[in-house]
Amino acid sequence: MEISIAELAKLLNGVVEGNGSHVLNTVAKIEEGKTGALSFLANPKYEEHIYRTGSSAVLVNRSFTPSKEISTTLIRVDDPYAAFTFLLEKFSNPSAQLSGLEPMCFVHEHAKLGVEVYVGAFAYIAAGANVGDQTKVYPQVFIGANVQIGSNCIIYPGVKIYHECVIGNNCIIHASTVIGADGFGFAPLADRSYKKIPQTGNVIIEDDVEIGSNCSIDRATMGSTIIRKGVKLDNLIQVAHNVEIGEHTVIAGQAGVAGSTKLGKYVVVGGQVAIAGHLQIANGNQFGGQAGVLGNIVDEDKKWFGTPVMEVRDSLRSSAVIRRLPELMSRVDALEKELKKIKSE
Amino acid sequence: MEISIAELAKLLNGVVEGNGSHVLNTVAKIEEGKTGALSFLANPKYEEHIYRTGSSAVLVNRSFTPSKEISTTLIRVDDPYAAFTFLLEKFSNPSAQLSGLEPMCFVHEHAKLGVEVYVGAFAYIAAGANVGDQTKVYPQVFIGANVQIGSNCIIYPGVKIYHECVIGNNCIIHASTVIGADGFGFAPLADRSYKKIPQTGNVIIEDDVEIGSNCSIDRATMGSTIIRKGVKLDNLIQVAHNVEIGEHTVIAGQAGVAGSTKLGKYVVVGGQVAIAGHLQIANGNQFGGQAGVLGNIVDEDKKWFGTPVMEVRDSLRSSAVIRRLPELMSRVDALEKELKKIKSE
Amino acid sequence: MEISIAELAKLLNGVVEGNGSHVLNTVAKIEEGKTGALSFLANPKYEEHIYRTGSSAVLVNRSFTPSKEISTTLIRVDDPYAAFTFLLEKFSNPSAQLSGLEPMCFVHEHAKLGVEVYVGAFAYIAAGANVGDQTKVYPQVFIGANVQIGSNCIIYPGVKIYHECVIGNNCIIHASTVIGADGFGFAPLADRSYKKIPQTGNVIIEDDVEIGSNCSIDRATMGSTIIRKGVKLDNLIQVAHNVEIGEHTVIAGQAGVAGSTKLGKYVVVGGQVAIAGHLQIANGNQFGGQAGVLGNIVDEDKKWFGTPVMEVRDSLRSSAVIRRLPELMSRVDALEKELKKIKSE
Repeated sequence: MEISIAELAKLLNGVVEGNGSHVLNTVAKIEEGKTGALSFLANPKYEEHIYRTGSSAVLVNRSFTPSKEISTTLIRVDDPYAAFTFLLEKFSNPSAQLSGLEPMCFVHEHAKLGVEVYVGAFAYIAAGANVGDQTKVYPQVFIGANVQIGSNCIIYPGVKIYHECVIGNNCIIHASTVIGADGFGFAPLADRSYKKIPQTGNVIIEDDVEIGSNCSIDRATMGSTIIRKGVKLDNLIQVAHNVEIGEHTVIAGQAGVAGSTKLGKYVVVGGQVAIAGHLQIANGNQFGGQAGVLGNIVDEDKKWFGTPVMEVRDSLRSSAVIRRLPELMSRVDALEKELKKIKSE
Repeated sequence: MEISIAELAKLLNGVVEGNGSHVLNTVAKIEEGKTGALSFLANPKYEEHIYRTGSSAVLVNRSFTPSKEISTTLIRVDDPYAAFTFLLEKFSNPSAQLSGLEPMCFVHEHAKLGVEVYVGAFAYIAAGANVGDQTKVYPQVFIGANVQIGSNCIIYPGVKIYHECVIGNNCIIHASTVIGADGFGFAPLADRSYKKIPQTGNVIIEDDVEIGSNCSIDRATMGSTIIRKGVKLDNLIQVAHNVEIGEHTVIAGQAGVAGSTKLGKYVVVGGQVAIAGHLQIANGNQFGGQAGVLGNIVDEDKKWFGTPVMEVRDSLRSSAVIRRLPELMSRVDALEKELKKIKSE
Repeated sequence: MEISIAELAKLLNGVVEGNGSHVLNTVAKIEEGKTGALSFLANPKYEEHIYRTGSSAVLVNRSFTPSKEISTTLIRVDDPYAAFTFLLEKFSNPSAQLSGLEPMCFVHEHAKLGVEVYVGAFAYIAAGANVGDQTKVYPQVFIGANVQIGSNCIIYPGVKIYHECVIGNNCIIHASTVIGADGFGFAPLADRSYKKIPQTGNVIIEDDVEIGSNCSIDRATMGSTIIRKGVKLDNLIQVAHNVEIGEHTVIAGQAGVAGSTKLGKYVVVGGQVAIAGHLQIANGNQFGGQAGVLGNIVDEDKKWFGTPVMEVRDSLRSSAVIRRLPELMSRVDALEKELKKIKSE
C-alpha cells in the first residue's frame, strides 16, 4: 500500500489527530514500529508502547485518552483491530489483482472457466473441469478431469487436484498440496505381496475451507473423502481415504487422520497428532500435540493428551509421577527390605 | 463408465436376473446404492442390504439364494468381488487412455521415450533420461539427467525425480513426491558451523512399487537408497539416504526411516513411526502408530508399540499401569506411613 | 566423471602406485568397490578392505604402509577424505554446468536476473523479483512478486516461494518445498466458526542455509519468520509463522516448530520432534527423535528426550522403570497384603 494518513482515515471513517500528510507504506506491530508504518492499539495491555512507537500512525479507539505525550499520529476509529484487518485484506492480498489467462497455460477445450478467473502460466486444466467466477489458479497448478471448483477460491502454485474432485466456494489451498491421490488400499495375497485396490471415489471439500501447504488429502476407495464447511487445515497434514472432517474443525501441522475415521464439528487437533482408522470422534473434542487416538471418543468437548490419549488432567498427573518413577522404585525396594526385617524380628 | 447391465454381464461372463436394459454409470457400496450404480455382495454379513439397496444392479455369487423379495437386478458371476475390482480397473483408471506428447512439454533431444508413452504439458525430461513403454508422465513432472524409468509406470503430476535415479516397471508415484534429493549429510566444523557432504549416490526403486504423495526419498551419500520390489509407501513419508526397504514392506503415512537403516521383507510400519538410523530390522516385524524404534530388531515377525518400542503385550500392560500411577504413588505414601507407625510402636 | 587414474592423481597433487592408465567413472565405498570406481581409505579401521576391494583405485595417506599384498592402484595424497570430497564436489554436481534461460520459462519484464543465472523451463519469476548471480532456478519453480534471492543459490524443481520473501547467498532449497505460505492464523467467532487473520509478513532466509524437500516455512503474520545463517533443515519440516531459528541450528526430518517460537544457535532437533508455540529455546540444546517440547528451555547445551521432554539421563531411568511397571504394581499389592497381615496379628 502507499496512502496518506488522511486518505486512510477517510477510508475508515476515522478522525486524524496529528500530522495527516505522511505516507504509509507498510504495517507493523506497535512495539516494532518504524517510519511509514501503520500500527494499532486494541489491547490496553500494550498502551505503554504507543508513547515510544516508531510507527507513523496508530489506529486507536475513539475513546482512547493518552496518559502521556504522544509523538505518532492517531487515527480514531470504532474498532481499531477490525479496521486494521480490513486494511490488511484490502491492501496486502496480492491475489486481488490477478485476472485473465497468462501465456503458456493449458486449458482444455472442454474445460469451463467462470468470469474474472485467473489462470497462471504452466497451470493445467483438464477436460470437463469447471472453475468458478473470480477463482485464482496460480502457476503450475494441476486440475484433473471433471474437477469442479467453486467461485472466489485461491489455488496457490503447484497444487495438484486429481480427477473428479469437488471444491466449494471461498476455499484457499496452499502450494504443493495434493487433493485426491489414491487412498492407501492394498489386499494381501497368499505370497505376502499386495494387490492394489482401485480407489474410485473422490474428495469433496465444502465452502470456506483453508488447507495449508504440502498436505495430502486422499480420494475415497468408493464414495467420498469429505472436508466440511469452514474446516481449517495447517501444513503437511494427511487425511486418508473415506475420512470425514466435521464443520469448523481445525487441525494443526503434521497431524494425520487414518482411513474411514469421522471427526465431529468444532474438533481441535494439535500438531503431529495421529488418529487411528475407523473411529468416531464426537464434536468439540480437543487433542494436544503428538496425541495418539486409538479408540472412539463418545463424549463431547473434552481435552486429551498422550499416546494412547488420556484426559489432560489425568495425563498431567501421570506425567508428574513418571518423572519420579526411579524414586518410587527405590521406595518400594526400601519398603520390602524393612518389612522383611520386621517379619524376621 | 456408461454401459447397460446386459453388456456388463456379457463382459463378465455373468447371468442377468431382472431388467438388463438399465444403464450403469457409477459404482457404490451396496448400503449406499443409487440409480445407475453397480454394487456387489461378497460377504454374507451384508446380505440384508441387498433387499433394500438403491443400486440398479448387484454382482452376486452364482449360488446366491435370496431369502426375501429383491427389486434390484442381479448379475450372477463366479467371484463378485474379483469381478467388481476387474471392472474398477477397467473403467475408472483415467490414465489408461493417455498417450502421446502434449504441447508445451520439454523432452531433451538426448532423452529416450518408449512406445505409447504419455508426456503431459509442462513435464520436463532431461538429457540422458529413458522412459519405458506405456509409462505415463503427467504434467509438471521433472525427470532429471540420466534417470531410468521402466515400462507401465504412472508418474503423477508434480513428481520430481533427481538425476541418475532408477525406477523399475509397473511403479506408481503420486503427486509432489520427491525422489533423489540430497541426503541430510553435514560435517560439523570447529566453529560449530556445518560443511555439506556431497551426496553422490542415487535412489533405486524396483518393480511394482507404489509411493504416495508428498514423500521424500533421499539419494545415497554413495551407493544407493533402495526400495525393493512390491514395497508400498503411503503419503508424507521420509526415507533418508542409504536406507534399504525390503520386498513387500508397507509403510503408513508420515512415518520416517533415518539414514542407513535396513528394513527387512514383509515389515509393516504404522503411521508416524520413527525408525532411527543405522539399524537392522528383521523380516515381518510390525510397528504400531507413532512407535519409536531406537535399536536393532533381530527376531522376526513380532509386534511393537511405544517409544522406545516394547512388544505390544508388554506395552499394553505398562500403559494400563501408567493410568494408575497417581494411585500407585498414594499407596506407596500410605505404606510408608503405616510402616513408620508400626516401627514406632 | 571419466578420467584416468594418472590424470586424477595429477589434479590432487598425488602419487600413483600401480597402474595409472585405467579410467575411473564412478565412486564407491571401499567395501563395495567395483571396476572403474575410486574409493578412499581414511580410517585405519577399514584397512582390511583395501586388500580385497574391487575398486580400480584407492586414495590413501602418503604414509600408508600396506601389511599385505594389494591389487588395486593406490593414489597417495595428504588427506584422502578431503581429496575425495573435493572430487565429489567437482565432478558430481550436475548444477555446475547449468546456465541461461531455457525455452518456455516465464520471467516477468519487471524481474531482474544477475549474471550466469539459470532458469529452467516452466519456472515462473514474477514482477519485482530479483535473482542473484550464478543462482540456478530449476524447472517448475515459482518465485512470487518482489522475492529477493541472493547469488550462488540452487533452487530445485518445484520449489514455491511466495511474494516478498527474502533468501540470502549460497542457499540450497530442495524440490517441492514451500516458502512463505500463509501462517495458520484464525480468530474464533461467536458461532464457533473461524475468520482468517491476514498473514502480511514474509520469510527471511539468511546465507548458507540448506532446506530439504517438501518443507513448509510459513510467512509471519506481521514481521518475518527468520531462518538464520548456516541453518540446515531436513525434509518434511514445518516452520510456523513468526518462528526464528538461530545460526547453525540443524533440524531432522518431519520435525515441527509452532508459531512464534525462537530457537537459539547450534540447537540440534531430532526427527519428528514437536516444539510448541511461543517458546524460547537456549543455544546448543539437543532434542532426541519424537521429543515434545512444551516449555521454555533456559539452560544451554542440554540433551532432552520424551514427551514432555526430560533430560536424557532422567528419561532413560524413567523408561527403564516403565518397562517394570506391572512388576512394581504387583510388589505394592504384595506389600499391602503383608502389612495388613502384620497389623491383624
